[in-house]
Amino acid sequence: MARIVQRIVQKYGGSSLGDIDRIKRVAERVKAARDAGDEVAVVVSAMAGVTDQLADWVREVAPLHDAREYDVVVATGEQVTSGLLALALQDLGVPARSWHGWQLPIHTDDEHGVARIREVRTEDIERRLAEGEVAVVAGFQGVGSGGRVTTLGRGGSDTSAVALAAALGADRCDIFTDVEGVFTADPRIVAQARKLDKITYEEMLEMASQGAKVLQTRAVEIAMKHQVRVQVLSSFADTPGTLLVDEDEIVEQELVSGIAYSRDEAKITLVGVPDRPGVAAAIFGPLADANVNVDMIVQNVSADGASTDLTFTVAKADLEPAIAALERVNRDLEFKALKSDSNVVKVSVIGVGMRSHAGVARQMFQALADKGINIQAISTSEIKISVLIAEDYVELALRALHSAYGLDSR
Amino acid sequence: MARIVQRIVQKYGGSSLGDIDRIKRVAERVKAARDAGDEVAVVVSAMAGVTDQLADWVREVAPLHDAREYDVVVATGEQVTSGLLALALQDLGVPARSWHGWQLPIHTDDEHGVARIREVRTEDIERRLAEGEVAVVAGFQGVGSGGRVTTLGRGGSDTSAVALAAALGADRCDIFTDVEGVFTADPRIVAQARKLDKITYEEMLEMASQGAKVLQTRAVEIAMKHQVRVQVLSSFADTPGTLLVDEDEIVEQELVSGIAYSRDEAKITLVGVPDRPGVAAAIFGPLADANVNVDMIVQNVSADGASTDLTFTVAKADLEPAIAALERVNRDLEFKALKSDSNVVKVSVIGVGMRSHAGVARQMFQALADKGINIQAISTSEIKISVLIAEDYVELALRALHSAYGLDSR
Repeated sequence: MARIVQRIVQKYGGSSLGDIDRIKRVAERVKAARDAGDEVAVVVSAMAGVTDQLADWVREVAPLHDAREYDVVVATGEQVTSGLLALALQDLGVPARSWHGWQLPIHTDDEHGVARIREVRTEDIERRLAEGEVAVVAGFQGVGSGGRVTTLGRGGSDTSAVALAAALGADRCDIFTDVEGVFTADPRIVAQARKLDKITYEEMLEMASQGAKVLQTRAVEIAMKHQVRVQVLSSFADTPGTLLVDEDEIVEQELVSGIAYSRDEAKITLVGVPDRPGVAAAIFGPLADANVNVDMIVQNVSADGASTDLTFTVAKADLEPAIAALERVNRDLEFKALKSDSNVVKVSVIGVGMRSHAGVARQMFQALADKGINIQAISTSEIKISVLIAEDYVELALRALHSAYGLDSR
Repeated sequence: MARIVQRIVQKYGGSSLGDIDRIKRVAERVKAARDAGDEVAVVVSAMAGVTDQLADWVREVAPLHDAREYDVVVATGEQVTSGLLALALQDLGVPARSWHGWQLPIHTDDEHGVARIREVRTEDIERRLAEGEVAVVAGFQGVGSGGRVTTLGRGGSDTSAVALAAALGADRCDIFTDVEGVFTADPRIVAQARKLDKITYEEMLEMASQGAKVLQTRAVEIAMKHQVRVQVLSSFADTPGTLLVDEDEIVEQELVSGIAYSRDEAKITLVGVPDRPGVAAAIFGPLADANVNVDMIVQNVSADGASTDLTFTVAKADLEPAIAALERVNRDLEFKALKSDSNVVKVSVIGVGMRSHAGVARQMFQALADKGINIQAISTSEIKISVLIAEDYVELALRALHSAYGLDSR
């Protein structure tokens, strides 16, 4: 039998909570959902800019800082908004209370700054939801094994919301943000970009991993695993957003659903690497030890049979540590030179449709070639093709690909 | 046998932690104490102005607010400084970690906004202090019986510090502030005011209760009860401050040690109150029910034997609720008129010396009369005489009394 009372988790981002007036408007939106008879739990981010300010103070105090104390400081922004929103709801006559990570609790591992949620305990709030109280949960934070405050990384409140929705068995998780949903491409760059009514979990996961900032990757992973019906929508409009769904819920599947890009890329080329077994391990082992994630890898065909060039990409922040790690092991590696370039962007076309269609990659390379854009590296997965290009060409590339795959608004 | 390692609690106020540079300077001061071989626990306030900003937001969201959510919001200021100071200490090579009220925990009652500390658990930090780690404890906050965040009221970090010092059996509790210690009178008004090297707990308690803002009253109560050696001193100077001591530690006791004043007073006069038994209960009962504290009370001699005038004082914030409560019960009371006046100040002279000396009150009344200052009400305790005067005369009265009791710097 279907449950008559719906259980909804709503998440509001920092721009939706940017000042007291906006917090009051969010309270009205929450009240409307509750007045409709739903059980409502709300997850809040910090007021826009607050987390950045707190993080700046931490760096000003100690450039090389203890991640545990970083978490203590930056987690306070969400505590403020959780209390203020609970008060705004009470002021509208809606029973509400705030919850911190340690109060539910939301248990995480101990990887401070990038902690992963292990368990969300909901006994207390389920009882109160049933009594008509709204739970206002501070996003982005949890509590580690030693009872210390942890945070979940950039965009972590999305993850808090989806994990809470999964734990509550919520009927829907509405992620309110400052955009109207998930678009076929960044509408600030591609004027023809369209809002998608639906997108599959897998596509959203690739979009998020490849640079689309609309949802944290980890949030999509949890949504996919627990089949949480996540909707991304604007808190400033009253239009439906984008719903994350299973593949079989999408009737007319496009070949490509969206195009993502990431500026957070840096390229390293090792020139004259000896072409012998074990060399890749000798390079990528030390990088892994230095906690550097390597993304795209291109190995040139050896010209002389003795040495080759190796190109790979890392996150911009990892460029310096990567170079340092490589220079430490250079005596064993014996490469001739190390070149690096931060002015690169990764552009990805994503769509579950490409599983069953050939030619998607060729179409991409042709569209870029037609505009004279050089491809520096390529990587693919079952539902995604990514290319590395020079930063100057990113807008041109996005618009060309958007047209080439027939995504422009009709 | 004397303990060789001293155990010190230091407390820093909001102006000492006003920006990142000041936080770094505080870290250096803490480091110096620890480098001298002491075990050091630090209690911090919020950065200057932050608690006010947070409280303003609360009032903007909901004028009649839930004290539990108020506490959630305003407690965050101390969490930020606890994390930042721990980081600044680590940056100087000093092992340190932050502690929130719920982490130690500091158990309080459930009177949100004005909670009282019930118990400070110190097992964890004692072990870490012994290992050389500095504990940085967020002041002003604790945790109530239901696991909710509580705060201790204005100046509550003083109380946190003294309660922690008592629980740790600390050798000293240094309260660092923006003044050099406890003065014979407010030096901003009385240029001749002198810093006291020592003051008794009892005198300090009266000073704090009668309006001196240098220490929270509750902090002095705990210090007196547990014989904590509290020192009030400046974080901007390297001079000794004022030490709170037992009476027998002061060799040359002055008649009057200090003069305090409070602008937080309002006067209510009930004109034509029937002069019959039970009338006082009929007046002060409803005020107590409305949580209004009555301070000074003056009942005029009945002229006609049938009715009298009754004057008393309340805190300024309680004036409106007091008037409302009295008007509700006026049918039974049958007073003829209610007059109120907020332009009054209470001036108090304080000294344990007056226990054994007569004439202190006469000296006070004479000094005020000589300046033409009218006394509107009087109250006394064993070591204190307070008078209510018109606000316009407060500076004149303070200077006159300071001279009359021979307190001017010599």
